[in-house]
Amino acid sequence: MKRFLVINGVNLNRLGKREPHIYGYTTLAELEERVKKQGEKAGAEVLTFQSNFEGELVERLHLAEDEGLNGIVFNPGAFTHYSYALADAVAGISVPVIEVHISNIHTREEFRHHSVIAPYAAGQLCGFGLTGYELALDFLLKREG
Amino acid sequence: MKRFLVINGVNLNRLGKREPHIYGYTTLAELEERVKKQGEKAGAEVLTFQSNFEGELVERLHLAEDEGLNGIVFNPGAFTHYSYALADAVAGISVPVIEVHISNIHTREEFRHHSVIAPYAAGQLCGFGLTGYELALDFLLKREG
Amino acid sequence: MKRFLVINGVNLNRLGKREPHIYGYTTLAELEERVKKQGEKAGAEVLTFQSNFEGELVERLHLAEDEGLNGIVFNPGAFTHYSYALADAVAGISVPVIEVHISNIHTREEFRHHSVIAPYAAGQLCGFGLTGYELALDFLLKREG
Amino acid sequence: MKRFLVINGVNLNRLGKREPHIYGYTTLAELEERVKKQGEKAGAEVLTFQSNFEGELVERLHLAEDEGLNGIVFNPGAFTHYSYALADAVAGISVPVIEVHISNIHTREEFRHHSVIAPYAAGQLCGFGLTGYELALDFLLKREG
Amino acid sequence: MKRFLVINGVNLNRLGKREPHIYGYTTLAELEERVKKQGEKAGAEVLTFQSNFEGELVERLHLAEDEGLNGIVFNPGAFTHYSYALADAVAGISVPVIEVHISNIHTREEFRHHSVIAPYAAGQLCGFGLTGYELALDFLLKREG
Amino acid sequence: MKRFLVINGVNLNRLGKREPHIYGYTTLAELEERVKKQGEKAGAEVLTFQSNFEGELVERLHLAEDEGLNGIVFNPGAFTHYSYALADAVAGISVPVIEVHISNIHTREEFRHHSVIAPYAAGQLCGFGLTGYELALDFLLKREG
Amino acid sequence: MKRFLVINGVNLNRLGKREPHIYGYTTLAELEERVKKQGEKAGAEVLTFQSNFEGELVERLHLAEDEGLNGIVFNPGAFTHYSYALADAVAGISVPVIEVHISNIHTREEFRHHSVIAPYAAGQLCGFGLTGYELALDFLLKREG
Amino acid sequence: MKRFLVINGVNLNRLGKREPHIYGYTTLAELEERVKKQGEKAGAEVLTFQSNFEGELVERLHLAEDEGLNGIVFNPGAFTHYSYALADAVAGISVPVIEVHISNIHTREEFRHHSVIAPYAAGQLCGFGLTGYELALDFLLKREG
Amino acid sequence: MKRFLVINGVNLNRLGKREPHIYGYTTLAELEERVKKQGEKAGAEVLTFQSNFEGELVERLHLAEDEGLNGIVFNPGAFTHYSYALADAVAGISVPVIEVHISNIHTREEFRHHSVIAPYAAGQLCGFGLTGYELALDFLLKREG
Amino acid sequence: MKRFLVINGVNLNRLGKREPHIYGYTTLAELEERVKKQGEKAGAEVLTFQSNFEGELVERLHLAEDEGLNGIVFNPGAFTHYSYALADAVAGISVPVIEVHISNIHTREEFRHHSVIAPYAAGQLCGFGLTGYELALDFLLKREG
Amino acid sequence: MKRFLVINGVNLNRLGKREPHIYGYTTLAELEERVKKQGEKAGAEVLTFQSNFEGELVERLHLAEDEGLNGIVFNPGAFTHYSYALADAVAGISVPVIEVHISNIHTREEFRHHSVIAPYAAGQLCGFGLTGYELALDFLLKREG
Amino acid sequence: MKRFLVINGVNLNRLGKREPHIYGYTTLAELEERVKKQGEKAGAEVLTFQSNFEGELVERLHLAEDEGLNGIVFNPGAFTHYSYALADAVAGISVPVIEVHISNIHTREEFRHHSVIAPYAAGQLCGFGLTGYELALDFLLKREG
Repeated sequence: MKRFLVINGVNLNRLGKREPHIYGYTTLAELEERVKKQGEKAGAEVLTFQSNFEGELVERLHLAEDEGLNGIVFNPGAFTHYSYALADAVAGISVPVIEVHISNIHTREEFRHHSVIAPYAAGQLCGFGLTGYELALDFLLKREG
Repeated sequence: MKRFLVINGVNLNRLGKREPHIYGYTTLAELEERVKKQGEKAGAEVLTFQSNFEGELVERLHLAEDEGLNGIVFNPGAFTHYSYALADAVAGISVPVIEVHISNIHTREEFRHHSVIAPYAAGQLCGFGLTGYELALDFLLKREG
Repeated sequence: MKRFLVINGVNLNRLGKREPHIYGYTTLAELEERVKKQGEKAGAEVLTFQSNFEGELVERLHLAEDEGLNGIVFNPGAFTHYSYALADAVAGISVPVIEVHISNIHTREEFRHHSVIAPYAAGQLCGFGLTGYELALDFLLKREG
Repeated sequence: MKRFLVINGVNLNRLGKREPHIYGYTTLAELEERVKKQGEKAGAEVLTFQSNFEGELVERLHLAEDEGLNGIVFNPGAFTHYSYALADAVAGISVPVIEVHISNIHTREEFRHHSVIAPYAAGQLCGFGLTGYELALDFLLKREG
Repeated sequence: MKRFLVINGVNLNRLGKREPHIYGYTTLAELEERVKKQGEKAGAEVLTFQSNFEGELVERLHLAEDEGLNGIVFNPGAFTHYSYALADAVAGISVPVIEVHISNIHTREEFRHHSVIAPYAAGQLCGFGLTGYELALDFLLKREG
Repeated sequence: MKRFLVINGVNLNRLGKREPHIYGYTTLAELEERVKKQGEKAGAEVLTFQSNFEGELVERLHLAEDEGLNGIVFNPGAFTHYSYALADAVAGISVPVIEVHISNIHTREEFRHHSVIAPYAAGQLCGFGLTGYELALDFLLKREG
Repeated sequence: MKRFLVINGVNLNRLGKREPHIYGYTTLAELEERVKKQGEKAGAEVLTFQSNFEGELVERLHLAEDEGLNGIVFNPGAFTHYSYALADAVAGISVPVIEVHISNIHTREEFRHHSVIAPYAAGQLCGFGLTGYELALDFLLKREG
Repeated sequence: MKRFLVINGVNLNRLGKREPHIYGYTTLAELEERVKKQGEKAGAEVLTFQSNFEGELVERLHLAEDEGLNGIVFNPGAFTHYSYALADAVAGISVPVIEVHISNIHTREEFRHHSVIAPYAAGQLCGFGLTGYELALDFLLKREG
Repeated sequence: MKRFLVINGVNLNRLGKREPHIYGYTTLAELEERVKKQGEKAGAEVLTFQSNFEGELVERLHLAEDEGLNGIVFNPGAFTHYSYALADAVAGISVPVIEVHISNIHTREEFRHHSVIAPYAAGQLCGFGLTGYELALDFLLKREG
Repeated sequence: MKRFLVINGVNLNRLGKREPHIYGYTTLAELEERVKKQGEKAGAEVLTFQSNFEGELVERLHLAEDEGLNGIVFNPGAFTHYSYALADAVAGISVPVIEVHISNIHTREEFRHHSVIAPYAAGQLCGFGLTGYELALDFLLKREG
Repeated sequence: MKRFLVINGVNLNRLGKREPHIYGYTTLAELEERVKKQGEKAGAEVLTFQSNFEGELVERLHLAEDEGLNGIVFNPGAFTHYSYALADAVAGISVPVIEVHISNIHTREEFRHHSVIAPYAAGQLCGFGLTGYELALDFLLKREG
Repeated sequence: MKRFLVINGVNLNRLGKREPHIYGYTTLAELEERVKKQGEKAGAEVLTFQSNFEGELVERLHLAEDEGLNGIVFNPGAFTHYSYALADAVAGISVPVIEVHISNIHTREEFRHHSVIAPYAAGQLCGFGLTGYELALDFLLKREG
C-alpha cells in the first residue's frame, strides 16, 4: 500500500484560529482528517505531521526517505522564505515533495514572493486555499498509481 | 452549463515538438482534447485558445469577461516574465484565472522565477507537467459546482 | 488644417468597464468623441486610434510621421513599463508625442512608476483623469497655432 | 471667490537668467504675472510664492491649508528629489497639489527621474515648459468650478 | 489582575557573561527579577520566558494569545534579522508586542539594522540598555490601566 | 538643576491637525506642556523647540552643547530620512540625544524605515504615540539623577 | 540548395528613413536585395522577413524550423531587450541564429546593453553597420558548405 | 589534557547517505571516529556533536565556553547562510572556532557563497572533503600545544 | 581687483570645537582670517561666508554670480551628500567653484563617499586639512592672474 | 600597403591546449598564420601580437597609433571584464578596434557578459569560434579598401 | 618524486615588513624555506614563486601544467578580488590549486570577502596565518601519496 | 635634503598626445620637468616615474618606502578604478601618498567616480589639470618643511 505524508510547518497549528479572513475556519485537525480520507478512498495511507521546529521538520523529511514513502505534500509556512536547512533536506531525499501555500504568495510584500525551497521541490502551488493540499495529494496519488 | 477556458500563450503551439525532454511528446491538440473531455465528464464545457500574439491573448481575456465564463486556466509561456499588458487584462476581469507552468520555474535562471501576472491570478501552480492543467481545471470545476 | 492623433494602448478599449472606481464610467468611444469635439472647436482635426497590439501601435506611429500630423497624445497603458519597441518608434518620428496616464502612476507599486517611453516623449502628465487627454491636446493645439 | 496658489521652489528665482537654453527667457515675475491673469479671466484669485528655503515652503503649504485655498501648482525645483519634508507637508494638507516641472525630467540623469513628492500629489506633469503651469492651473480652475 | 510576559530570545541566557562591555554585568535572572518587581508595584503579574529555540518562542507567543495576556515585551536576539516564523507568530496574535534591543542596532553593520519582526510589533525601542525592558513594560502597564 | 530639551522637527507644528487618525488630537502646545510638567515633577527643567528649518534645528543642537544641557529628546520628522546635516550636528555634541517617532516607521514604505540620524543617537524608539516622548524623557531623567 | 533567412524586427521597416545619421540611408528593401545577391553568389537562397509584431516573428522562427532552413540572421530591434518570447522561440529551434545589431549597443544607455536573446543565439555581432548582416551571412554560408 | 569539539550542523547526520557523488560514502559515525583517533594520537580528547536544531547548536557552543574547551571545528551545514543566532553564539564565546565546509562553496549558486558566521570564526576552509575536518583539527592541536 | 569667495556650509561654524581630533583646533574665524590674508598678498580680495541654512547658501551662490566674482572655494559640509538644490545652484552660475573637504571623505562609510555637487564643480580636493582651502584658493588666484 | 594588427590577450597563448572542447584544437601559431594569409590575399600586411601582460597590450595599442595601422582585431581574454586601462588605451587611439570573443560570452555567468572595453570599440562579435577573427579582419579589409 | 609549487602574489614580497601586527614578522624567504622543508620531510620537492606582475603569475601557472606538477598552493594577494585573468589561468590547467589567505577575509570590508578565483580552485582556506600554507600543502602531499 | 616622487600610471606616457581637448598639449616629459623645478626652488629633490605595468608601480611604491622618501604624488590613471593591488601597496607603506586626477572624475560615467585607492591615500584632488600635481606637491613640500 502506498504511503504519503502531509507536513505543515511553523504556525500552521494555528490554522482556523489565526487570521481566519485569510486562512478560513477549518482547523489543522480537520484538514488532516480530510487528506487522510482522500488517501483512503484512493487505497493509500496518508500520514500527517506538524511542527514549529525547523529541526523536527528536517528530521521528518529524513525519516520519510528511510520509510520509503511515495510522496510528500509540504507547506513550510514562513520557513519557505529563509530555511536553507529545509531546502537541503528536500534536496537530499528522493521522495518527491510538492510545496503548497494556502494563499497567493505573489500578492504579498516583495520578500514573501520568494521560496528558497521551491528549486528542490517537484512542484509548487499557491492560492487554492486548503484545496491546494488536495490537488497536490491528488497529483501524487495519480502519479503513483 | 458552466463554461471554462484553457489558454496557452506564446510558443506553446510547439508543445510536443520543442524540447521534448522537458515538455514531453504530447501535442497541444492532444492536451486540448484532454481538458475538453475532463470538462465533459464534469458536465461543463471547456473552450481552448492559443496564440503567439500578446494582443490576441489580451482580447481573449476581455471576451471571457463578456461571455461570463466561469474560470480560466492560463499558461502565458514566456509572457509570464514581462507582459504587464496581460497582467492588467487579468486584473481587469472578474473571471478567476489560474496560472499554470508545465515545468518548475523556480529551478530556472533567476529572471525566470518571476511572474508579473501572478499577483493578479487567483492561484498559481508549476512543475506538474501537463497534469497541472488538469489540477487547475479540477479546482475550478469543483469550486464552481 | 492641423491634424492630431489620440492613441490609446493596451486594455484601454475596456475604459468605463474595467475598475470604474479608478478609471470612471466614461467609455473609450465617449472619450474619443470628446477630444474630436475639442479639436473641432479649435479648428483642427483629431484622429483617434486604439489597439491592444504593440505592433499596430508601432505602425500607427510610423504612419503619423508619413501623414505629417502635428502632434500625438499617447496613453500606452501597460506597454509604458516595458515596450522599448514603442519607445524606439516614438524616438524615430519627428511628430511631438505627449504621454498621458489617467491615474497617478507614482502612487503605485515601484515598477509601475517607470516609463521606458517618457525619455523620448515631449512631455508627460498623469493623475488628471480623462481631463489629462484634454490638457495634453490643449497644449498641442496652442503650440501649433 | 476661489483662490489658488502657485509655488516655485529652490533656484526658480533665477528663471530667465539661469540656463536660458533650457528654461527660456521669461522671468519669474513675468510667469507669476501670467498665472495671475489666467486666474482673473476665470474669476479666481491666484497667489504666488517663491523661496529657496525648504522650511518656508513647508510653512507656505501649511498656511494654504489654513487659508482654505482651492488648489496649488507646485514646482519644487531640486527639492523634488530628496525633500521628504515637503512630501509630508503635501501629504498633510487637503488642498490638492499639482506637481509641475518645466523640462522633461525623464530625459535627465537617473537620479533626477525620481520625485519623492509625487506619490502625495494629485497629479504631475513635465516637459511643457512654462505652459505646464497654465495647464495645471487650468485643471484646478475647471475642477473647482 | 493584568498579566504581562517578557520574552528573551536566542543567546540571551548568556546575559551578563557574554561581551559585558556591551551588555553589562546583570544576568538574565536578575533582569527577570527586576521586571517581575516592576509589575508587582503596578499591581500586575509579569511572567518571563527565555529560549534559544525559535520553535519554543513561536509556541510561547501562541500560548500568550490563549492565556489572554495583556502585553508582551520581546527581545528576539539574532532572530530579529531573519525569523519570518516569529514575525508571523507576532502577526497572528492580538496581544500587543513591544520589540526591545539592548544596544543601538543602527550603529552596527548594515544587515543588523533590519528587523523582520518590527512591522508586526506595536512599537520598537533600542539603545536603552536593560532599562529598555522597563520602559516597554511601563508603556504596556500604563496603556493597560 | 538639570535641564533637558525636547525638539520637534519639520511639520510637527501641525500635530493634532494633520492626519489625526495617525497622530491623534493632541497639539504641539499640549505636548510641550505635558513634558514640561513631567520635568517639573522630577525636579528638572524641560525646554522645548520646534522648527521647520533644518538650519534652525542644527543651531539649536549646537546651542544645547554650549548651554550644557543634560539630554535631548528629538523627533526630526521627515528630516530623519535624509538630513546628514542633522546627523552631523547630533554627532558633534556630547549631549545624549534620544530619537523618537510617533508611529512605527517599520510599517511604512521601504525608504521610510531608514534613519540617517539614528547611528549617532543614544537610543531610538517608535510606535508609542506621544507617550514615546515621555518614555524617552523618563530614561534621561533617571539616567541623570 | 541551402536556404537562409534574414529577419528584421520592430521598427526596422523604417531603415533609411529614421535617424539616418545613425543608421544610414540604405532602405530595408535595398538591404534585403543585397543579402539575396550575396546568397546567390554563394549558390544559396536567402529569404527575408520583417515584422513589427513579436507574434509574427515568433511564428517565422517556428516556420524556419519546419522548412529546415540552414541558418538565420536576426536583428530583433528593440525586442532584443525584453522579448523572452523570442528568446524561447530561438531556443526552441535547431536552426542556428546569429543576432545582429547595426550600431554598437555597448555605447548606449545601460539597459540597452543587454540582450535577453543572445544566450540562445549561436553568435552575436554589433557595430558593423549594415555590413554586419553580410558578415553574419558569410559565416553561415561558409559554415554550411 | 586538552579537549576539542567537532560540531556538525543540520542534515549532516545524513553524511554518506545523501548525495554521495558530492559528499562521499563515509558516514558521520566514521568521521567522528576518525577525528577522535586523530586527537588521541596527539594526546588530546576530541568530543563530537551533531544536531539538526539551531537551538541545540547554540547551546552546545555556550557549553563549550563553560567547559573551557580548547577549540572547535564547526560545519554548520545550511545554517551557514542565514543563522545569525549561531553567528552571535560564536562571537560570544572565547573558544576559537574553525568553520569547515566539505565542498567548495564558491562554486555553488550565488547565495551559497556567503557565510554569516565566518566573520566571527578564527578561520575558514572549504573544498577539502572530509580531510578538511582533520586539517582544521590539526591546526587547533598544534596551536594549543 | 579680483574678488573671491570662501563659503563654509552646515556645522562648520563649529570648526575648532567639534571633534578636534579630526578637524584640529583652528576656528572658523581664524581660517577666514587666513584666506583673506592669502588673498591680500596676491593682490585680491577674499570674501567669506558661512551658513547652516541651505537656502542662504543657495542665495549666496546666486549673489556671487551677480557680483561677478572670480571664483569660489566651497566646503558644503554634510550638504555634500544630498543637496541637489546646492548642486543646481552651482550648475546655474558661471563662477568656477572648487569643492573642498577637510578630511578624506573616501575613508568614511559608503554613503559619505558621494558628492552630488562634485559633477558641477570645476575641481574637488579632500584630505588636506585646512590647507585644502589655501590650495584651492591658490589655484583660483593663479588661474585668474 | 595597408597594415592591420591581430592582438590576443591573456591566456590565449594556451589556445588549442586549454579546454579544447570549448576553444578547439587550433593553436595560436596556426591562427596567426591563418590571418596573415587572409591579409596577403587581400594585398595587406597583418601583424600579430600576444601577451599575458596588460601593460604590454596597452603599449602595443599605443604603438599601433604611432605606426599608423589601419585597424586592429582584439581579443582581450579575461581582461575584457575589468581592464579599464585597456579601455582607455583603445579610447585614446584613432585606429579602429574590433573586439572579438571566440565563444558566446552571453551564455556564461552574469559577470562574464560584460565588457568594459566594448564602449570604445568600433564593433564587437562573439560566438563564431576562430572564424570570428576572420570576419572582423574581413570587415576592416573591406572598409579600408 | 612529486613536485609542488607555492605561489605568492602581489605585495607578498613585503611579508614580515608590511603591517606586521596583521601578518607577523616572518619574511617571505623564511616562509618559502619552511614549506620547502615540509616537502622534503614528505619526500617531495616544493618549488616557490612570487611576483607582483599578474602576467608572470599567469605564465607560472601555465608552466606548472607543462611541468606536470602535482599541486599548487596559491595566495594571490589583492588579485583575489578582480583578476579574472588568474581565474581563467587556474581554470585552464589540470593541476589542483588551493587558494590561501593569511588573515580571515570575511572580517574585512564587503568587497574584500569576494574571490573571483575561488570558483576554479580545488579548495580555499583563510585565517590560519602562515600555518595556512602548511595545511594546504599537507592536504596536497597526503592526497598525492 | 627632502626627496619626493611623482608617479604617473597607465596611459599617462601619452600625455599631450591623447585626447588633448581634455588633457592639454603638455607632454609627460614637460610635466616631469616642471615638478622637478618646483622641487628645486623649495630645496628638495623630486623624482619621477611612469609605467603602464601595475607590477612596476607596486614595486616603485615598495622602493619608495625603502628609500625613505618624504611623500608621493600619484596619478594611477585607469588603475584607480580596480587595482586593489595598488591600494594594498599604498596602504602598506608609511610614505604619504596624494592621489591626483587631471580632470574631474565626478563628471564621468558612474563607474569612473570610484577610486579603490583613495581610502588609503592621505588626500585626493581632481579637476585642476596639470596644476593639480603642483598643488599636491606644494602641500607635501610645506608639510615636510
